[in-house]
Amino acid sequence: MSTESRVDRWERRAEWPLTVAALLFLIAYAWPILDPELPSGVRHALGLVAWAAWALFAVDYVVRLALATNRGKFFFRNIFDLLVVALPLLRPLRLLRLVTLLHVLNRHAGGSLRGRVVVYVAGAASLILFVASLAILDAERGREGANIESFGDALWWALTTVTTVGYGDRFPVTGTGRAIAAGLMLSGIALIGVVTATFASWLIEKVQEVEDAAQTATRRDIEALTEQVAELRRALQSTAARQ
Amino acid sequence: MSTESRVDRWERRAEWPLTVAALLFLIAYAWPILDPELPSGVRHALGLVAWAAWALFAVDYVVRLALATNRGKFFFRNIFDLLVVALPLLRPLRLLRLVTLLHVLNRHAGGSLRGRVVVYVAGAASLILFVASLAILDAERGREGANIESFGDALWWALTTVTTVGYGDRFPVTGTGRAIAAGLMLSGIALIGVVTATFASWLIEKVQEVEDAAQTATRRDIEALTEQVAELRRALQSTAARQ
Amino acid sequence: MSTESRVDRWERRAEWPLTVAALLFLIAYAWPILDPELPSGVRHALGLVAWAAWALFAVDYVVRLALATNRGKFFFRNIFDLLVVALPLLRPLRLLRLVTLLHVLNRHAGGSLRGRVVVYVAGAASLILFVASLAILDAERGREGANIESFGDALWWALTTVTTVGYGDRFPVTGTGRAIAAGLMLSGIALIGVVTATFASWLIEKVQEVEDAAQTATRRDIEALTEQVAELRRALQSTAARQ
Amino acid sequence: MSTESRVDRWERRAEWPLTVAALLFLIAYAWPILDPELPSGVRHALGLVAWAAWALFAVDYVVRLALATNRGKFFFRNIFDLLVVALPLLRPLRLLRLVTLLHVLNRHAGGSLRGRVVVYVAGAASLILFVASLAILDAERGREGANIESFGDALWWALTTVTTVGYGDRFPVTGTGRAIAAGLMLSGIALIGVVTATFASWLIEKVQEVEDAAQTATRRDIEALTEQVAELRRALQSTAARQ
Repeated sequence: MSTESRVDRWERRAEWPLTVAALLFLIAYAWPILDPELPSGVRHALGLVAWAAWALFAVDYVVRLALATNRGKFFFRNIFDLLVVALPLLRPLRLLRLVTLLHVLNRHAGGSLRGRVVVYVAGAASLILFVASLAILDAERGREGANIESFGDALWWALTTVTTVGYGDRFPVTGTGRAIAAGLMLSGIALIGVVTATFASWLIEKVQEVEDAAQTATRRDIEALTEQVAELRRALQSTAARQ
Repeated sequence: MSTESRVDRWERRAEWPLTVAALLFLIAYAWPILDPELPSGVRHALGLVAWAAWALFAVDYVVRLALATNRGKFFFRNIFDLLVVALPLLRPLRLLRLVTLLHVLNRHAGGSLRGRVVVYVAGAASLILFVASLAILDAERGREGANIESFGDALWWALTTVTTVGYGDRFPVTGTGRAIAAGLMLSGIALIGVVTATFASWLIEKVQEVEDAAQTATRRDIEALTEQVAELRRALQSTAARQ
Repeated sequence: MSTESRVDRWERRAEWPLTVAALLFLIAYAWPILDPELPSGVRHALGLVAWAAWALFAVDYVVRLALATNRGKFFFRNIFDLLVVALPLLRPLRLLRLVTLLHVLNRHAGGSLRGRVVVYVAGAASLILFVASLAILDAERGREGANIESFGDALWWALTTVTTVGYGDRFPVTGTGRAIAAGLMLSGIALIGVVTATFASWLIEKVQEVEDAAQTATRRDIEALTEQVAELRRALQSTAARQ
Repeated sequence: MSTESRVDRWERRAEWPLTVAALLFLIAYAWPILDPELPSGVRHALGLVAWAAWALFAVDYVVRLALATNRGKFFFRNIFDLLVVALPLLRPLRLLRLVTLLHVLNRHAGGSLRGRVVVYVAGAASLILFVASLAILDAERGREGANIESFGDALWWALTTVTTVGYGDRFPVTGTGRAIAAGLMLSGIALIGVVTATFASWLIEKVQEVEDAAQTATRRDIEALTEQVAELRRALQSTAARQ
C-alpha cells in the first residue's frame, strides 16, 4: 500500500529480525546464569551474540528516530525503548520484545477481545516470571546474606512475589534484586487487576444479556413502527391521487 | 431424543459412575495420607480401589476419543483430561471431577447466574483447599527441612496461600510441594477475581437500575406512539372511506 | 400498619433491646480479655451479664421460630443465627449484631447506594478487626509457642491478615486461633473485593455518562416525534371536519 | 468573576503558597531523617522552616473556617485538615498537599477520565511510598528489636507492604510504626482496587462497543422516522391546501 508510511514499512520489515535477535539474546542471557560453570570460551561467544543482538536493537531505535516525522514527540513517546537499549541494568527487559510472538499467536487464534486478553496475560506473565527469575538469580547468587541460590529458588520466589503471597522464605537482599522485586510486585498487582477485570467483564455481560434482549425488542418495535408509518404515507398518497 | 449424539449419550450415562469413581478415589487417596500408620492390608486394598477408579477414568477418555467426530480436535481440546489420566503426578486433580456434584446442586437450587457463581466458587474453593492440603502433606511430610507435618498444618498453609496472606510460618520446600503451591496461588488470584467481579456486577446492576427505569420509560413512550399512529391510520382510512 | 406480619412486629420491637444486649455482651466479653488481672468478683459479674445477653438472643431466636409461617424454611435460612446462639465457640460472632447500629447511621445519613456501601464496609471492617483481635488474644495468649501476647499484637496481626499482607511476625498457632484467622482472611478477600467493586462501579458510571447523554438525546427525539405525530393527528381531524 | 465566593477566592490565591510551603516542609522533614548526622545548626534551621510551613497551614485553616458560610458544617467536613494541622503525629500527612502538583499536571495533560486516574494513582502512590518510608524510618531507627535501619530498608518495606506481598524480612515493631503500616496497607488495598477498576472499566467499554454500535443504529432509525413523519405532514398540508 502506498499510504503506508516509511516508519510502518520499517517496523513491518524489522519485526522478525528483532524477534530472532530477542530469542538469541534470551539464550545468550539465560545460559550463563543457568550454568555458572560454563567454559569461558562459550561464555565469550554468548557475550558476542548478546552484543550483536543489542546492536540490532540500537540500530532499530536510531532508524525509527530518523524516520519519525516529529522527532521530539517520538523521543518522549519511546523513552522506555531508549532506556532499555542504553542502560545495561535494564537489559533483561529487552526480552519483553518476545511479546511479539504473542501478537502472532493471537492473529492466528482470532477470537474475542477477552480471549486475546487471556492469551496476552498468560504469555506475558510466564515471560515476566522467567525473565525475573533469571535476573534475580544473577543479582543475588553468592552475595552476602542472600537466600536465592538456584534457579528453582528464583522461580519459586518470583511466583510467591507476583501472586503477592510473599511467604518470606526467600527474598532479595541487594539493591538490584530489590529493584527487580519492585517491578515484579507491580506486575503482580496488574495481574490480579486484569484477571479480576476480565471475569467482571464476562459476568456483567452475561447478567446484562436479559437487558439487551429488552433493548432488541425496543428496536424491533421501532422497525415495525417505521413500516406502519411508511404504509400510512402510501395510503395518504393514493388518497390524494384519487381526489 | 434422536438428535442426541452418541458422545452426549455416553457422557450422560457415564456421569454418575465417574462421580462415584471420583468419590471412591477420594477415599483411597485421602485415607493413607491422613493416617500414615494404616495397616498394609488396608493400604493395599485402597490401592486397588484407586487403580479401579483410574481404569474407569481411562476407559471414559478412550470411549469419548473413539466416539468423537473429529478426533484431532477432541485430542487438543481435552489435553488436560489426558494428562490427568496419564500422569501419576497429576492424580489429585482427578478429584476435581467432584465438581459435578456442584452441577447437580445448582440444578436443584435454580437461581440467578450470580447465585450459581457463588455456589461454584464456595464449592470449588473448598474442594481445592482439601485436595491441595492432602497433596502437600503427601509431598512434604518427613522431607528434610519440611515444616508441614500434619493435616492441620497443611490445611492452614493452604488457607494462607489461597488468600495470598502468606505468613511464611509454613511453606513447601520440595519441588512437588512448590508445584502444588503454584497451582494454589493461581487459584487464589482467581478466587479474589471472582469474588470482586461478582460484587462489582451486583453493585453496577443496582446503580444502573435508575438508568434502566429511564429506558423502560422510553419503551413505554414508543408503545404509546405506536398506538397513536395506528389510531391515526384508522382515522385516515375512515376519512378515505367517507369520501 | 395492619399488613405488618407478627414476625415483622417482633423484629421491629426486638431491634433495640438486642442491640443493647450486644453492647453489654461486648463489654462482658472484651473487658476480661483486655484486663487479664481483673478481680474474680468483677469477672463473675461480667459472666452473668454475658449470660443474660445470651438468654435474650436465645429468646429472640425461639420467638422468631415460633412466629414463622414456614418453620422448616425459617430453620434453614437462619441456621447461622442458631449456630451463633448454640455454640460457645462462635460467641464472638454475637457482636456482629452491632452492625444494626450501621443501619441506623445509614438511615440518618441517607445518601446513595455507593455511599451506604462505604459506611457499611468501614463500619463492618472496624468491628470485625476489633472482635477478631479480642478473640485471637483470648485463644492464643499464654499458649505454648504463641507470639500474640497483648491487644496491640493482636490488633496488628488482625490488620496484616485482613489486608492479606501477612508479614509472619505474628501468627496463630492454636486450632481456635487458626479458625479465627480463616474467618479474617476471607473477610479480607471480601474487603478487597468490595473496595475494588465500589471504585469500578463509580468509574464505569463516570465513563458511561457520555453514553447516557446520547441516550437522553434519543429520548428527547422520541418525545419531539410524539409531539409531531399528535399535531399531525389534530391537523388530520380538522381536515376531516372541514370536509 | 463576581459569583466567586470569598472562600473560593481565598483557596485559589492560597493554592501556590501552600504548595510551596509543602515543598519546604518536605525538605525540612526529609533531610534530618535521611542524614541523621546533620550538624545541629542546619537541623535547627530546618526546624524553623518546618515551623513556618506549619504556621501557613494553620493560617489557611483558620481563614477558611472564618470565611465559611456554615462553620459547623465546615468543621465536620474538614476534620481531617484540622487533625493534620493540630497533631504533631500526623505531620507527615501535610506532604499530601503536594497532590496539588498532580492537579496542575493533569490540567496540562488534558486527556480522558481514565488517563487522569492513571496519573493520580501513579503520583499519589509514589508520594505515599516516599512519605511512608521517611515516617517509618523516623519511627523505627534505633529502637529495640527494630529491623528498619536505613532509607533503603524503609523504601523496600513500604513497597512490600503497599503491594500486600509482605515477606516479613522487615516489619515495624513500635506503635507509631505499626500505625504508619496500617495507613500504608489500606493504601495498598485502595491501589489494587483502583488498578483493577481502571482496567475493568476499559475492558467493559471495549466489549460494549458492539452493543453501542447497535444503539447508534437505533438512533439513526429514529431520526429517519422523524424525517419521514415530517415529510408526511408536509404532504398532508399540501393536500389540505389543494382542497
